[in-house]
Amino acid sequence: MDSRCLPIHLGDKSYDILFGRGLLKDLGSKVRPFCAGGRAFLLTDQNVDALYGATAENSLREMGMRVRRLALPAGEQTKRFDTLPEIYRAMSDFHLTRADLVLTLGGGVIGDLGGFAAATFLRGLPFVQVPTSLLAQVDSSVGGKVAVDMPWGKNLVGAFHQPKLVLIDPDVLQTLPPRVFRDGMGEVIKYGFLFDPTLLDLLQDPDRIEEVLFRSCDWKRRVVETDERDRGERMLLNFGHTVGHAIEASQNFSGFTHGEAVGLGMLAITRLAQARGLTEPGTAEAIAARLAQIGLPVRAGALDWEKVRAALQNDKKNLGDHLTVVLVRRSGEGYLYSTNREFFEGVEQCLA
Amino acid sequence: MDSRCLPIHLGDKSYDILFGRGLLKDLGSKVRPFCAGGRAFLLTDQNVDALYGATAENSLREMGMRVRRLALPAGEQTKRFDTLPEIYRAMSDFHLTRADLVLTLGGGVIGDLGGFAAATFLRGLPFVQVPTSLLAQVDSSVGGKVAVDMPWGKNLVGAFHQPKLVLIDPDVLQTLPPRVFRDGMGEVIKYGFLFDPTLLDLLQDPDRIEEVLFRSCDWKRRVVETDERDRGERMLLNFGHTVGHAIEASQNFSGFTHGEAVGLGMLAITRLAQARGLTEPGTAEAIAARLAQIGLPVRAGALDWEKVRAALQNDKKNLGDHLTVVLVRRSGEGYLYSTNREFFEGVEQCLA
Repeated sequence: MDSRCLPIHLGDKSYDILFGRGLLKDLGSKVRPFCAGGRAFLLTDQNVDALYGATAENSLREMGMRVRRLALPAGEQTKRFDTLPEIYRAMSDFHLTRADLVLTLGGGVIGDLGGFAAATFLRGLPFVQVPTSLLAQVDSSVGGKVAVDMPWGKNLVGAFHQPKLVLIDPDVLQTLPPRVFRDGMGEVIKYGFLFDPTLLDLLQDPDRIEEVLFRSCDWKRRVVETDERDRGERMLLNFGHTVGHAIEASQNFSGFTHGEAVGLGMLAITRLAQARGLTEPGTAEAIAARLAQIGLPVRAGALDWEKVRAALQNDKKNLGDHLTVVLVRRSGEGYLYSTNREFFEGVEQCLA
Repeated sequence: MDSRCLPIHLGDKSYDILFGRGLLKDLGSKVRPFCAGGRAFLLTDQNVDALYGATAENSLREMGMRVRRLALPAGEQTKRFDTLPEIYRAMSDFHLTRADLVLTLGGGVIGDLGGFAAATFLRGLPFVQVPTSLLAQVDSSVGGKVAVDMPWGKNLVGAFHQPKLVLIDPDVLQTLPPRVFRDGMGEVIKYGFLFDPTLLDLLQDPDRIEEVLFRSCDWKRRVVETDERDRGERMLLNFGHTVGHAIEASQNFSGFTHGEAVGLGMLAITRLAQARGLTEPGTAEAIAARLAQIGLPVRAGALDWEKVRAALQNDKKNLGDHLTVVLVRRSGEGYLYSTNREFFEGVEQCLA
């Protein structure tokens, strides 16, 4: 199978991302080198399982691996801390050892949850990610961030655990519902405005999707390679996320999708920055145009702004009392800016 | 306060172990550099808290840190996965950030549990260990292994998370019950037979305890520095642990202490090895003499050997089907030996 390879350089934690149409059928041969013990634990959700579970499992079995497939209910609820014992139990019952392999086949929920289980079971097993949503393909494939939710906070418990391999098959995107597909486009637009305006011009052409995936991952790679543990440069990737996450939290993560909220967040913070002379005039308008072109919202509609502000106070990306926001100077030029919480005053007017 | 320092070299995860009588009163000044955010989360158990909690907290407050002290019930039961949400909740309520510090004040249970919470809350916070049992001082202080128990398996879920500092105050050992003190001696005897017979001669002299602690940690340091992730050399430290752990498991961890079981495990495997010509004659007898001298058991008494054998089958240290045991060629010379499960046949006769 024809595939393109993006190497992620992280010392002894380096790994490759493979891109290619139909690559899922080759899963077994691609991951076999990472499974000395011969047992493959395949975590997925029930929606993805119905579409691709058997293909993945068969591919693994054809390479002589023993497979235990666990399909959890689809949806954010599954990413709870409370789900972990079920996974650990299944891993134990399958006699998984440190020489074996964990695979995650699904969107961000499955990647984060299964990655965290792999990071912590027996103090850490190798794992391979097979992201099946656009968001997971362009966002979670690079970075090694894995996490679960507590009832009072998303991603509150987690780890840095780099995969041994990420396998991205653009064909699986064809079965995504349109709103879930657009969800991932929020992050792609983010890479465009942070680093690379030419990426934005590819978005309208479905035939260029593999190029979009590759270049998005490549931009994230450049940032993550210089800041694996998320202490500096990597904060750039939070463009739109501080406000976006607060919007999501205010809706208990059941309103806007992540990509929709990040899109609104990019727009809001860029309007705030533009008003303070920190961003070139017209940039916010360009962001709004790209969001609208993709079908992402540019107005927040009815929101509980009290809750949004409360969530902004609790953002875990703040180190102590210090507050850093991500801005773009102009399209394609992101930067970090030190400020305080007053920066967000008037945020609701930006999304009216 | 006079203190001795043992640097642990692990690249950007390097840290120091400080040894000194009365050092606990200096906790605040020693850890202040690792607490940029100014908040110190102090995890302890109720027994240790009654003796040393206030001293530790006051020392932190004197250095201007805000302190949240959480004292959990003492005992193995506390080290369960299910305890974690209570800790995470307290951390969240205290608004702990990645710039703040987690401290563990207690034995192995608190060190392992608090270390795992520190490793996973917000994807990892700095932590400082203040081990208060002999076992924790000579064993858990070096290595970065943190873990919690699942109902069906001890230490099944964990991480490698190196502390920023370990502070060892030998004075706190004076309040340990004799059986708990002897518990730690099992590990010290292990270092003696694996690496350094002269260490064994110090054990009878209470005035040399600081020397015993320092040298035990120093031996563990040498092994861990060459094998941080526990993939080779570090297996040496499992001397006596395969059988010892199986004995503990057969009693649901409520019979022999860890040190007692490890003592029996060293004796059993050395007798098996001696009978096969893999260990110099007389070595097992020397181990038995040292154990008896300290007051540790040399006979297993009534054990459910079916359960012991079942536990030997499930040892997580086996990579796939491969089995490696730790033997000593003679006193002071440990080595790894590749074999299969038949090696353990006749183990019960060794402890009769």
